[in-house]
Parts: sequence; structure tokens; C-alpha cells
Amino acid sequence: MKIGRSKWLAAIGVALLSVTAASGQTAEKGPWWPSPFGAQDQAGNSNYITPEKILTSLKLAKTGKIYELGHIYDAKMPAFGDRPYVLLTQPANEVTKADQEAVHTDYFTGFLGHMGTQFDGLGHMGRALKMPDGSYKAFFYNGYTEADLTGPKKGAGGVEKLGVEQIKPIITRGLLVDIAGYKGVATLDARYEVTLADVLGALKKEGLSEDSIQPGDAVLLNFGWAANWDNPSKYNDGHFWVGENKGSPGINHEVAKWMVSKKVSIVGADTCCVMMMPQPEGDAYNLHVDLLPYGVFLMENLDLRELAKDKAYEFLYLNLTERLRGATGSPVRPIAIR
Amino acid sequence: MKIGRSKWLAAIGVALLSVTAASGQTAEKGPWWPSPFGAQDQAGNSNYITPEKILTSLKLAKTGKIYELGHIYDAKMPAFGDRPYVLLTQPANEVTKADQEAVHTDYFTGFLGHMGTQFDGLGHMGRALKMPDGSYKAFFYNGYTEADLTGPKKGAGGVEKLGVEQIKPIITRGLLVDIAGYKGVATLDARYEVTLADVLGALKKEGLSEDSIQPGDAVLLNFGWAANWDNPSKYNDGHFWVGENKGSPGINHEVAKWMVSKKVSIVGADTCCVMMMPQPEGDAYNLHVDLLPYGVFLMENLDLRELAKDKAYEFLYLNLTERLRGATGSPVRPIAIR
Amino acid sequence: MKIGRSKWLAAIGVALLSVTAASGQTAEKGPWWPSPFGAQDQAGNSNYITPEKILTSLKLAKTGKIYELGHIYDAKMPAFGDRPYVLLTQPANEVTKADQEAVHTDYFTGFLGHMGTQFDGLGHMGRALKMPDGSYKAFFYNGYTEADLTGPKKGAGGVEKLGVEQIKPIITRGLLVDIAGYKGVATLDARYEVTLADVLGALKKEGLSEDSIQPGDAVLLNFGWAANWDNPSKYNDGHFWVGENKGSPGINHEVAKWMVSKKVSIVGADTCCVMMMPQPEGDAYNLHVDLLPYGVFLMENLDLRELAKDKAYEFLYLNLTERLRGATGSPVRPIAIR
Amino acid sequence: MKIGRSKWLAAIGVALLSVTAASGQTAEKGPWWPSPFGAQDQAGNSNYITPEKILTSLKLAKTGKIYELGHIYDAKMPAFGDRPYVLLTQPANEVTKADQEAVHTDYFTGFLGHMGTQFDGLGHMGRALKMPDGSYKAFFYNGYTEADLTGPKKGAGGVEKLGVEQIKPIITRGLLVDIAGYKGVATLDARYEVTLADVLGALKKEGLSEDSIQPGDAVLLNFGWAANWDNPSKYNDGHFWVGENKGSPGINHEVAKWMVSKKVSIVGADTCCVMMMPQPEGDAYNLHVDLLPYGVFLMENLDLRELAKDKAYEFLYLNLTERLRGATGSPVRPIAIR
Repeated sequence: MKIGRSKWLAAIGVALLSVTAASGQTAEKGPWWPSPFGAQDQAGNSNYITPEKILTSLKLAKTGKIYELGHIYDAKMPAFGDRPYVLLTQPANEVTKADQEAVHTDYFTGFLGHMGTQFDGLGHMGRALKMPDGSYKAFFYNGYTEADLTGPKKGAGGVEKLGVEQIKPIITRGLLVDIAGYKGVATLDARYEVTLADVLGALKKEGLSEDSIQPGDAVLLNFGWAANWDNPSKYNDGHFWVGENKGSPGINHEVAKWMVSKKVSIVGADTCCVMMMPQPEGDAYNLHVDLLPYGVFLMENLDLRELAKDKAYEFLYLNLTERLRGATGSPVRPIAIR
Repeated sequence: MKIGRSKWLAAIGVALLSVTAASGQTAEKGPWWPSPFGAQDQAGNSNYITPEKILTSLKLAKTGKIYELGHIYDAKMPAFGDRPYVLLTQPANEVTKADQEAVHTDYFTGFLGHMGTQFDGLGHMGRALKMPDGSYKAFFYNGYTEADLTGPKKGAGGVEKLGVEQIKPIITRGLLVDIAGYKGVATLDARYEVTLADVLGALKKEGLSEDSIQPGDAVLLNFGWAANWDNPSKYNDGHFWVGENKGSPGINHEVAKWMVSKKVSIVGADTCCVMMMPQPEGDAYNLHVDLLPYGVFLMENLDLRELAKDKAYEFLYLNLTERLRGATGSPVRPIAIR
Repeated sequence: MKIGRSKWLAAIGVALLSVTAASGQTAEKGPWWPSPFGAQDQAGNSNYITPEKILTSLKLAKTGKIYELGHIYDAKMPAFGDRPYVLLTQPANEVTKADQEAVHTDYFTGFLGHMGTQFDGLGHMGRALKMPDGSYKAFFYNGYTEADLTGPKKGAGGVEKLGVEQIKPIITRGLLVDIAGYKGVATLDARYEVTLADVLGALKKEGLSEDSIQPGDAVLLNFGWAANWDNPSKYNDGHFWVGENKGSPGINHEVAKWMVSKKVSIVGADTCCVMMMPQPEGDAYNLHVDLLPYGVFLMENLDLRELAKDKAYEFLYLNLTERLRGATGSPVRPIAIR
Repeated sequence: MKIGRSKWLAAIGVALLSVTAASGQTAEKGPWWPSPFGAQDQAGNSNYITPEKILTSLKLAKTGKIYELGHIYDAKMPAFGDRPYVLLTQPANEVTKADQEAVHTDYFTGFLGHMGTQFDGLGHMGRALKMPDGSYKAFFYNGYTEADLTGPKKGAGGVEKLGVEQIKPIITRGLLVDIAGYKGVATLDARYEVTLADVLGALKKEGLSEDSIQPGDAVLLNFGWAANWDNPSKYNDGHFWVGENKGSPGINHEVAKWMVSKKVSIVGADTCCVMMMPQPEGDAYNLHVDLLPYGVFLMENLDLRELAKDKAYEFLYLNLTERLRGATGSPVRPIAIR
């Protein structure tokens, strides 16, 4: 399972070349597959979270202090586009004798897993490659295709490969990269482009070297954007330029590719999309596909302000996705413990 | 926040008396309220999980081995009654240029939080008390009433008190009580009544004393029933006596009250309902209301077979409920680590 | 089943007095019950649509020309408040042999029956009366109470009385009252108050006398507001004063009461709410409760422009609500035929 | 729009040949397209319902007697397979002053349009044809393809062609073909195969000639099967051979093709599927594709017993599908009037 860093970077290099050229990929080999975890793997970089990794991560908790890194889910939260969220609890039955139970159950409908604090699974996005006949076709992590994911049942019951139920529990070392703190602001400007220099500068300011990042770590970037959560119009609900919406800050492709090279498990941020939204003009493609096809997950709509305030840069990070068969995203209650 | 055990038991004693008598409860004081955590508390026994408790619990992980204690959610799993579960993933967009993203999102509808591996929150069930005028009224944990929970909005958006978003992260010491192992069977008989003698006997066989149970611990009972999960007709889908359904084993009231006296955070089992189903003839009331009003949560439909096989009786237990505002239950990915 | 008009008006008079006084209503008798159709009736003024009424109405069709009076339902239509509407069709299975079927089915979630062109059933709204103890309690058509409607099951599966499945097929004489035409405009101003003088004036201009209105007729008012349908911001999606929203025109209480006195089956209009929205300052109560408790249905979000253009003032009107057990509203495809 | 019967039958003949041969179809011309209503038509045989047809049909009502031909929709009705149906009405708000409104709205989720009394639209099923390269591809009414229906949006928001919103109001002549009456039974046997001889024999017994069937007529077949509606296990809920389920009676291909030759608008029956279920062994393909691609709609799960009892063989038939954009089926309240 171990591959040297140089080999991996070489692989990435090939990948980056091939995704712009007609790439001659086959089912067995393409710019980003087979994965280092084998040709059948569906768990991506959660594989880096070995028992040893878990044990060393658990030791990062020194005081037992809990940080809730997610927002509470409700119907009023900012939604990306027009994704509905409805929770209905039926009032309880009447009671007519001592000790009788009064019962509530809840009915939920919505794009759970793609709303609020959300985890993007490997089935969420694939990336187009040119085919020998000149057409384009999307490939997902480990070379899985759309036909593999939604072929026979067309998505009824979820995808048939790369569902979030495949992901190992993410109990790992978390790192905060406080970009807002590095830039000396509470909240980055809308559409501030976070560069690799910003990331490396913030790490250095925090006393962390680039080399200290280990495979399987979760890297969370604080833009201070969670301050806008209660103002959906400003936060970014997918309706750009409507109301107070002026977009949101995010990382650029260089940062995303660097994350892949560091073999992190998760790149998280306190915005809808981790990347700048709307994408910069001239941006050739969605930054998500720098990450997901390469086995790196995203966590979106975090709230990292308390971690930043406490200068809590390294911590035990718990990110337990629900095992919903065939889902391409998951709700999560992300927790940091120091 | 600390109260002595004898005081607590006395309180319980009063409670048990008063729930059968006309009890003269008021908003301020009733058989099970105010809670030891204050009259406004909504977090129940998750309050026992202090930073110190978390730190000592994390140290229970010695090897980093992960045990998945839940089932994967899908539409075919046994459902209690007729609770639908639908997950639809739309097939991805076509791609027409290099590097373009192909995107999936999932639409979910169902009684999530009350299906499959599920956590019962404090809003799930209240318990009826006789009122001065001879009528009955349901009270929930800490004396909250149905009017507090579903009054103004009648449950639209969930309950307004005791929603699962109030519960602290349950990162605690887990204990397996292997009843099936104690009885020398792989799977208990349908409708086997698990007694306190069984629980104490199993603990003793495992080398654990009754006194070793600490406030905030999660106590998980293995009945071996998860072996029937793939056979919904037998497992118990709420359709008693239909097909192979002959009910399911469970604990009796004595065990439930003992759990309350031990101040555990969670009582879990590998059946739909933790209690025997259908309840024994003559059983006066639903066993859930021995637990939830007293601040003790339930975990249902676990799979504890691998823990039992490994004789893993004490472990770090992670139980992170989703913070769905107003929900009365939650899906969970319960994890044990040794 | 027949009662004289004067008797009915007298009954109304009593009703109007009693609803503002403490009214001494009982289960058997109140300001608007028992209904003229018996104390158990749940069909309201659809009862006026007798076989004779149907036969005479069918004869109003002279040319067979169809007018579609509803809007097409889709997710982009103006919604009142935040009512979601989601329709997902799974792409069809692959086919692998001659003549094999490729199948689509559709999954719908939403407030169907309360979105787009919609019919308000008698369970949709009740009206508060003062009780002997000084409290208030809502009564619905024929004196049914909230306990009758959502008592035992708390609305799971719909209401248990006054569901739309009780309503007889509305195949009746339709009348267009072209208020916009009478006022000489294409579209009434936002928040134009339509008075009884307007209604009588428009009828007169159309060559119809007040007395020509017969029990069971459906009276549809054209405000020209359907012209704004494709602009949800202006149309009135419940978000008053947001974007272009300046409210919408509607009838006042005097008109509603007159409609009751005329024993019409349906009052319809081309706005969200038939009444002015938001209600005029100082308006004591929601105009819907001038109609529904008295057995008169509402049709909302119609499109009456083509009828108005053709000066089609009298026609066969088809309004077949779906027989959804326990629903309080219904989608409808309203049709006029001349 | 008129084409001679012989020409149409010739076209059908070609079609039947070509669907078994590699058929050389093109976008412009195939075995069943272009339709007689033009190459762009999406309304199928509802086009036969012209203003003249409507006028003559309305005249069939002689007494104004209404027949409800559908079942009431609720969660307990027989469902085909595992299609959920959930209707939740939130209990009304409290009222605190005179005349205040108490409001209910309903939330619905389910396969509405494919449950209970249901109308199959032209987008519901396509039929496979062999392509020049030896592969198979589904074609729908008028040669529309799966790419036309669910191409760009993959079915989100429904199909983009052949949605039920395209269908003209079906206000037509209805004919009852009482097969059960002809066979002298109240209810046909499960899996009774209804032949063309049965249909012609029943028509003759009713005093109707084959030639009296006119384009646009709705032909409804009474099997007496509605008597089993309250017993979902027997009725046929798609779980064949489970419980009392022994399948259900239905027409064979010969009858379906004859219906196409008669240019009827709708073929309806009182079973789940109109055709025998499960299909006879050796049946090469689903009978639906004898009808839908040819522009003929299906109505399923009718209740025709009262019509049969009254020997009401000819009547005004109202079948107003909801205009749900992109839906492939629709709930309907089908009505006969004599």
C-alpha cells in the first residue's frame, strides 16, 4: 500500500499532462488509476487511516475539549441552488393511562448529504477525459465510469460503486490552516483566491512545516466565512449576485494539487465549495475534480472560528460519514478534540 | 452537576412510586425532573461525558482496531412498521470537454433517524402522568411537555425542545454485555426475556463487576440477533407473526431501571427495540419510557457480533448523532475502537 | 336539501353576529352549522351539483372549445412561502433485445395541493370561536373541530374528516367575472381591493344579473394577474416586499360573504389567495374563513386571460379534485368548455 | 389529420414486421413514427378528441348520474412493487382570538401517477428496436428517444419530451366492455387471458358492434377485479406468489393491437396492469409497448363494477390528467356520466 512520494508525484505529473491531452486511458490504467490501494478500491484516501494512524491521532487529544466544526442542519440554512430540506415531526399520540408512551417520529426529505455541513464522497464528481473517437467521457476515482455508478438502476437506490458506505471511518490528525488569521482579517473577502503561498505562509506562522503533513491527515482551512452563515443571502446559496451575494473565497488549483501530493484524506473549509465561487473567469474546470478523482474528500460549510480563536492548529479529528448505501455525499458531525 | 448515587436512587425511587400514583407534579418538579443537570437541560446523560471522561475513554483504544457496530442503510433493510426509505441519485450530466465535472447528488426521503441503526433522542418518547383533574398528560425528559415540543409549529421543522441537536458528542467508554455468549448460544430465541440476573451474570463472566460501570458509559447488549438482519421477515419489521416473524428478544423493565440507576448514557442492542417485541402480555407500558424520560438514550439495530467474537468487552465508543434541528432520532455510524 | 334564500341569509346574519360575540356554540349547533346538507356532511357546496345541475351545465358547451384555466406545475412556479416541489424521473433501463420496454416512473415530493393551481378543501382552514371559558377554539365546516380532523393520528395519512376525497365532482356552470376588463386594464394593480360594487358592475357589463347566479355555480374572477406567473418575484410567492413583490389584488370580505349568500360552489381567481395579499391593515381575519367554513371552496392561481379575451362569461366548468384521502387541498386541471 | 383505416392498418403491419426485423428506422421515420398528428406531436391519441368529439360526447350524458371509476388514494392501497406513498398533514396552529384561521397543509411524497388509479403517459414506456450496429435502443411515441426524454437533466424535473402536460383534456365517449359479465362471473380468474374473441363477444352482447368504436373513444374493460382492492395481497401488489397473490387477469397482445387499430385514446381496466400479470410464459414483451408508442394511453386500477351493474356501456367519460411538467404518469379522478 505504501508508495514513495516521488513516485506519486510522478503519477500526478502524468495525470496532469494526460487530462489535457487525449490520454489513451483504458479500464486498467488511466491518468489517475489504478489507485495506490488497488484497482478495486472504493475507499480513497480514507485508506491512509490505518490502526496506527488512529492510535497516534487519538493521542493528540490532551484536554478532552470538544470543538463542534459543523453547523446545525435546518431548513433555513444556506442551500446551494434550490435544494429543499423538509423535516416534519408528527405531534405525539394522546395518552389515556398512566405510564403510556407518547411517541414522535420524523419524516425527512431533501438533499441530505449535499446541504449544510457536508462531505463529498468519491461518487459525487468525475472528470472528463477525451476518448479515442474524440468524444468525452467522465471517469471517477480509480477509473470507475458513469456506467459503473448509475448503469443498471440509473441511480435508483444510489450509485452502485463509490457510495459513501465504502469509506473507512475518518479518525485522524486534523490540521487547521488559518488563512484569515494569516491575512490578519476575521473574514476573507468574497472571492479572495487562496494561493499555495498563503497556505504555506499560514502553516509557517502556526509553527507547522510543509513536511509535517502526513498521509491521511485532514486539512481544514479557515477563511472566517462561517460568520456569514446566518445570512444566506451573503453566505453563498448558489444565487450569485442576488441580494448580498458576491461569491465566496476559496483555494485555487495549485493548492488542490498540492493537497493531492500530500495525500491528505480531507480538504475542508468554511464555505459552500472550498474553491472560489463563482470560479475565476478563465478557470478551465471545477476544482473538485482536482481532488475527488484522486481519492481526496471534501468537507464543506464548516465552522472553524473557535479552533482559530484558540490557535488549535493540530487536533484529533472525527469525521464519521453515515453508511448510506449508494449515497454520493453524507451529513457529518465533524468534531475536533484537543 | 455531581450528585451522589444514593440521592439519585432515592429520586428514582420517588419517581417509580409517583408514576403509578397520581403524582402532583408541577412544571418545576415531577417524578423525574428537574434533571441533575438543571431544569433547562436538554442533553440528558450525554452530560456525563465530560472532557475528563473523553480523555480516559480515548485511552481505551490500544490497537486502533475499528469495529463497525451499525448496519448499512438501504431500502431493503428491516423497517419498523411501514416507514419508507427512498434514495435517488440522478445520473450525471453529459461531459463535452476535457476535465469537465460529471456531478451526482442524492435525494433522500424517509424516516431517517427511525430506520436501520438508529439513535433515540429524548424527544422520541414521553411518559404519561395523571393530572389533578384525572386526565393524563405526557411528560418528556426534564418535565418538558408535548406543548413544549410541538406546540407552536406542530412539529413542522421538528420539535422545539429536546431535538437531537442538543446532545453532546458521545465519545465514551463502551461496554459489551454479551448475553448470547453468557447463555451459550449464537442467537437468543425470539422473545427471550433478558433479566438483570442475565446482565449481571454476563458481566461477571466477562470479568466486569457491576460497580465498574461508570456514569456516561454506553452499555451494548449482544443478543446475536444481527444474524437475522438480512432476513427482514424474521428480524422484526414490526409485522408480528407475519412470515417468519416471531418477535425479538429484549431486556425487561428491571434491567432498564438498573441502567438508569447506573447513569449510563446509552443502552444499545442488536434488535429493533432493545426491549422484547412484542412486549410480554401484561406488560404495563413501553420500556422506552423507563429510559428516555430519565435522560438515557437508546441505540437500536446494532451489530455486535464481531465485538463478541473478539471478547472485546471494554472499548472506546464513538456515537456522533447528526445535529438535525428538532429531530427526535438520528442515523449514526457507531464505532468501537480497541 | 333545498332551503330558501331568505332563510339562508338569515342564517348568515346570525353567523356573522355570533362569530364576534361569545357564541354559545355546541357540537350540534353553531354559527355555521349544522350545514344545510345535514350534520354529518363533508362535501360542502359541491352538494349543490345535482344530476340536474350537471345536465344543464353540460348544455352550456356549444362549440366544444376548451380553455385550460390552470398553470402547468413545475418546480419554478411561484410558491407560497417555502413550499418545496421536487419531481424526479429516473432515466430508463437499458434495452438489450427487440421490443423490450424502457420504463420511467416519477417520484414526487412536495406540498402538492397547496402549490400552483390549487383547490382549497374544507379541511384547509377553520375559524376560531370563543368558548364559554374564554378560550378560543377552531371550528371547520359543519362544526368539525381540530380534534375531529387530526386527533387520533395527528395528521399522519391526512385529516380524518373533511378530506378532499369527500367532495363531489364539480361539473358545473362557470361564470367569469372580469374585474380587470371592467376596470379597463389588462392587470389590476397590486393590492387593488375588489369590492362588491366591482363584482356587480362587471357582471352587469357582461350582461349578467346578480340573480342569474345559481347555487353550485363556480365564480371565477379575472384580475389579469396570471400575466405575472412567469415572474415569481412579482406574482406573489409569499415573500412580500422582496424583489418586485408588492402584493397582489383580491376580493374583500363583503364579496366573500356575498358569494356565500349566493351558494356558489367555488370562488376562484388568478392570484395566490383570492383575497388581497398582504391583507389590508386593520383587516381582522383571513378572508378564507368567510368561505371554507361555509362550504364554499377556493381555486387559486388560475389563468383566466383567454376566457376574458373571448368574452366567455358563461361556460361548462370542470373541476375534478383528486381523491387523496385526508388531503386538505388538491391539484386540479380546471377546464372551461363553451 | 385524417388517415384512412386501411392505411393505418398497413402502417401497423409494417410496424409489426419491423419491430422484429432490424428496422432501418431513422429519426424521421420508423415503424410507428411519424405520428398521424405530425412529427413533433406529443399528445398522442388525445388529438382525436376534437371540439366536435367533445360536443358529441357531452351529449351522451342523459341523466347526469355520476360514476366514480377510480379508487381513493391512500397509503394502504395495493402498490406495484415497493412504491411508497406518504401524506402528512401538520395539525393546525393554535388560535387565540375570534375569527382567526386554523390552517392545514399537506406534504406528499411518493410515486404519485404510478400508484392507485393511474394514467400511463407516453413517456412511461418506450420500445426497443435493433440499430444498424446490432445494438438495441428504445424509442417512444413519435420516435422520441431516451436522450430526448432524460438527456440533458437526467430526469431531474421530469422528462423533457412526452410529459403528461402535453396531453389534451380527455373528455370523450367511454365504452364499457364487460368481460366478466360476458363470461358470466363476478370476477375473472387470476391470470385469465382476455382474448379478442372475448372483447368482440362482450361488445356484441352489449349491443355494440366493432365498427361503432370511434377514434378517441376510451375503452374500459371490466374484469370485476376491483372486488379485490381491499385485499392488497390478492389484488396484485407486484409481489407475485406471496400471500394470496396469484397474479391478475388481462388482455393479450391481439387485443392491444386491435385497440391501436381502432385508434382509441385510452385502454383502461380494473387491474394493476391491464395486461395479464405476470405475463404468460413465453410472452416476448411487455404489452404496454403495444399501446404507448402508438399513442394509446392506459388507465389502471379502475373500478368498473357499478357501470357493469347498471349495464352502462356507453357514456361521457372525463379523464383530466394533472399537468405536471415532465411526469410520465398522472393521478386522475376518472368519471363516467350517463
